[in-house]
Order: sequence, then C-alpha cells, then structure tokens
Amino acid sequence: MHELVQDLFLRYLGNSLLAARDDAAVWPVPGLGTGRLAVTTDSYVVSPIFFPGGDIGKLAVCGTVNDLAMVGAEPLALTAGFILEEGLSLSDLEQVVASMAEAAREAGVAVAAGDTKVVDRGKADQIFINTAGVGRVRDGTHLSGANARPGDVVLVSGTVGEHGLAVLSVREGLEFSFPLASDCAALNELVAEMLSCGGVLRCLRDPTRGGLATTLNEIALQSGVGIEIEESAVPVSEGVRAACELLGLDPLYAACEGRLVAVASPESEGVLLETLRRNRLGRQAARIGRVTAGPTGRVILETAYGGRRILDMLSGAQLPRIC
Amino acid sequence: MHELVQDLFLRYLGNSLLAARDDAAVWPVPGLGTGRLAVTTDSYVVSPIFFPGGDIGKLAVCGTVNDLAMVGAEPLALTAGFILEEGLSLSDLEQVVASMAEAAREAGVAVAAGDTKVVDRGKADQIFINTAGVGRVRDGTHLSGANARPGDVVLVSGTVGEHGLAVLSVREGLEFSFPLASDCAALNELVAEMLSCGGVLRCLRDPTRGGLATTLNEIALQSGVGIEIEESAVPVSEGVRAACELLGLDPLYAACEGRLVAVASPESEGVLLETLRRNRLGRQAARIGRVTAGPTGRVILETAYGGRRILDMLSGAQLPRIC
Repeated sequence: MHELVQDLFLRYLGNSLLAARDDAAVWPVPGLGTGRLAVTTDSYVVSPIFFPGGDIGKLAVCGTVNDLAMVGAEPLALTAGFILEEGLSLSDLEQVVASMAEAAREAGVAVAAGDTKVVDRGKADQIFINTAGVGRVRDGTHLSGANARPGDVVLVSGTVGEHGLAVLSVREGLEFSFPLASDCAALNELVAEMLSCGGVLRCLRDPTRGGLATTLNEIALQSGVGIEIEESAVPVSEGVRAACELLGLDPLYAACEGRLVAVASPESEGVLLETLRRNRLGRQAARIGRVTAGPTGRVILETAYGGRRILDMLSGAQLPRIC
Repeated sequence: MHELVQDLFLRYLGNSLLAARDDAAVWPVPGLGTGRLAVTTDSYVVSPIFFPGGDIGKLAVCGTVNDLAMVGAEPLALTAGFILEEGLSLSDLEQVVASMAEAAREAGVAVAAGDTKVVDRGKADQIFINTAGVGRVRDGTHLSGANARPGDVVLVSGTVGEHGLAVLSVREGLEFSFPLASDCAALNELVAEMLSCGGVLRCLRDPTRGGLATTLNEIALQSGVGIEIEESAVPVSEGVRAACELLGLDPLYAACEGRLVAVASPESEGVLLETLRRNRLGRQAARIGRVTAGPTGRVILETAYGGRRILDMLSGAQLPRIC
C-alpha cells in the first residue's frame, strides 16, 4: 500500500522538490528579500469525497491557494498531508491525487512536500487531506479583514452557494432538473489581476464555511464597521435558489469555494468590476453593498421586499463536512 | 465547540500572526533573499495520544521542526491543522494544545496559521494533527540523503528506539520496572551547533518510522553507497533493550523522535561528536559505522558476535500509528 501510494503521488505530483526525497524540500526563492512570506493551512474532510464540480483533492488545492490569494500572496508551494482509512479504494485515491495535480498545475503551484498516514478501518472516513501553503506578498500589498472603511464598496466575484448546495445535494441523494455544481476554483490569477488593475483593495475574503453572511460579519467585526447589503444585488443561480427552497436553506449562508468578497475604495468600483468580469471566474461579479460607520460589527440586509434586518453570523450548527 | 477551540488555540498558541486572523499569515522575513526556503509537512495520528515523555501535540511540533532541521533549515513558522472526533474531551485537547505551545516555544518557532475540523464520532480517532513547517536554509548548507560518500562516518546522536517502545508499551498496557519514555525533542538547536562547528556534514536524517535500520537503508539507496554498522556501537538504553526482548522487537527498527543520524566526512568525526555531546540531546552520541563504496544500497550489520548480515528495510507491517 505504502509503495503504491508513494508511486501514485510521485507520478501525479512529481517535481524536482518531491523527487529529492529529503525530509523537507529546499529551493531558492530569488528576490524574496523584497517581499513577505505568507503561510496557511486547511484540513479537508468533505463528505462525500466526490461531488459535482470537484472532489476533495481539487478542493484541497483550491482552498489553500485561495487562502493565500486572499492576503494577496502568490503561491510559492503547497504541502499535502493525507490521512487514509484502511480499505480506501486505490482508484478513488488515484482520482483524488490526479485531481489535486491538475488543480495545482492550473494554479501554477507545486506540491513541494507530502506525507501519508494510514489508520485502521473506522478510525477515519475514507480520506482526509491537509494542505498548507506558502506564498509571497509583494511590497505595497496590504490586505486584511481589518482594513474596511466607511464608504467602501463591497463586491462579490460571482454567484454564491454553489459549493455548499452541490455537496449537500449529492450527500442527501437529491437530484434536481437544473444544473448544480461546485464553484470550486483557484482564484490566485483573478486576484493578481485585481491587484494590478489600479483599484484600491482593502480586503479580500473567500466565503467558505458559513457562506457570504458569515464572511461579511467577520469583516465587520475585524474592521469595527457596519456593512449594508442589498439582497437583490447578490448573485444567486437558479439552481442554488431552487435547492435552497427545497432544503429550507439560505443561499447567503451556503459555502463557496471559488468566489471572493472584496472591500475596496468607492472610486475603485468601476475598474475592479471590469477586471473581475473580464476573467471567466468573475463574469458575474457585482457590487452588493457598502461599508458604513455603524452599527459596528453588524451586517444589515436590505431585503428584496424593502425591509431591513440584521444578517447574523450563522447560528446553530453549520452544515458539517462541507469542506 | 468551535469558539472554545478557537479561544483555546489563541490562548496557548497566540501570536501576532494568529491574532491578525486573516486567511493566511503574512510577515516580513528580512534577508531571506540570501537563503533558501524549506517546507515540510507531517500528519500525526499516534495512538494513544498521551504517552510517557510526550503527547501528540509535542510530537507534532518536534517532528516537523526536526524535518526542517534535517535539511539544515532554521524553522521560520509552523502551521497546524486539527481534525477532531466529536466527543473528544476538551481537557485532553487543552493538554495537547498546551504541549504544542510549549514545544514550539522551546524550539523558538511560532505556529503561524491553524485550522480545525470536527468530524462525527467514529469518523476519526480522538485527534489527528497536521503540522507543516517553513524554514530557511543558509547559503552554503547543502544536506541531503544523496550526499554520503565512501569513507564517510555515520554518527547517531543518542540511544535509539525510546519513542517507539514507549508508545507501544502504553498501548499494550505493559508496565516495566525500568524507565521508558519517548525521546521526543526538537533538534534544531543541536543541528545549528553541528552546522557551525566546522565539521563537514553530508546528510542528517531523523530515524522515525522504521527506525535506524530503515533510515540507513534510505541513505544507502539515495547515495548509491553501502553502509557498515557495528551493532555493539549503537547506543540502546536498558529499558529499550528489555522491552524489545519482551516484545520480540529489534531496537534498530524502533522509531525515535528526538534522535538524528549524521553522515560526515571522516575528518569531522571528532569535532561533531564533541559538539553533539556538549548538548543535552546529544550526550550519548556515538560513531556507529561508515560508508562504503558497496554493495550499493545495502546496509551491513557487524553483529555483536562478530558475524555480518544484511540489515534490511523493515519488512512486513510497520508498527502502526507510532507517530
């Protein structure tokens, strides 16, 4: 098993860093002296491991690349740690690893170090993957959830909730007549375009666990500002809308894995939306609201029917194992 | 649960990088332009999670710091990804996190990013931890398992097998009259001293899974050389020796988590052993053998009784979940 796995990883993820087979990968990073390092980590325990639009492998790459991108970092390298349940089918594992490799190639980043542990049947659930990422942030780029200022605009790069609903639907064995696939995608190129378009970006965040509503609340809290969102401006696909109605869920709380929320200076709205929409991953970008002086830490939703209500953090149990 | 965990991690592992609470940690690394980056990752699934001499938290820090140290890298940052089984006692978790924090402080490295996932009871086994590490290798340092040359000496920094036997003993409910505790420790300071003592180091490796015998085989294969080991020169504690006899195990295959194997030029033997023995983690350092031109990829053991036999890679099942 160990050899098969190692062989499989080398075959799909192989590069000169992995091939050196030392305890850690070492490589020169010319010019890093002028930038800053970024590191991040995420464990992926999504169930089921295959879902429309992706699988746990693709998710593990895109999710971590996106976490780097959200601080404006270009990915320098990923690491991947696998915990495998005894009895996991090798073809499933192969499919996952192949999909990781493809996602890494598309994002232009290498998996520079890896590790595998196997535990007894019943001591894990098929496969868990941890990916950590190392990136470089250029001088002059300073993105943080603490940077939002009253008057700023709030943008979203596309429709929300596809990932959460796609995973949930297959888990529950639901079939819909409309297409519903995860939005899982690496956003680093899109972010690079946003960073170089001339707009003034304060904050980027990908609305994963807890969805758009939770992400906005985090930004409002971190920055000590209020945020007002127009419900009718938030792009939601027909598929997500219908699935949410059927399941009694709110798309604003459903996870995305290939979308971003941007807070930017009001003057930047035009150039940022233009930049976003030129990229296939930002085609449906929209301005969804603005930052206010208060009430601090609160997100207010202007509903489609003209009312105003507090859009809270997700209360109660989050959808489990969505990523 | 989520809040409790977050609070707990912040309390024990808190630093300015974690406290920024952005999707990735960003910090300036002055002068990195003149060195190289190193990254590594390991998932820890040791069972039981507490054992004499350590726990899964200490292990997760030391193991990854050591993987960096083995390529001569000073640790710049660790990341930590937790997978928790629902029902895990909070006090156990607290103990593990506290122990991680202590180990990180001792090793002089920050846990710069973290993540937690909780899975249903029966879908994991108490707690799994992934740690990834980022480090910096200074110019002029080039350690690799591929660098061993005929004539080189093979050193070990202390007694072997304590970690494996300590974990196994508590798992099997064995009690011995002699002390038996894991050797789990971070070796980065010891390695820094070795790198600056003037000796010529070719390769460092920590003999974890599969123990000393497996590590030596890996070096022999990677370098395309032979290695000859004198069995009587390998330091083994009374406790490990007795436990191995009782359990029918060979200490040369038992995992260490705070020992290193060094391959060095023959002229460096004296200064390296002196340097090792001055540090409390290398007090029982010894020269255990030498590198030969062949048979390539083979490790030959000169037994205590004057015989010679091939010391193979571990065959059959490795002791499971020892790290």
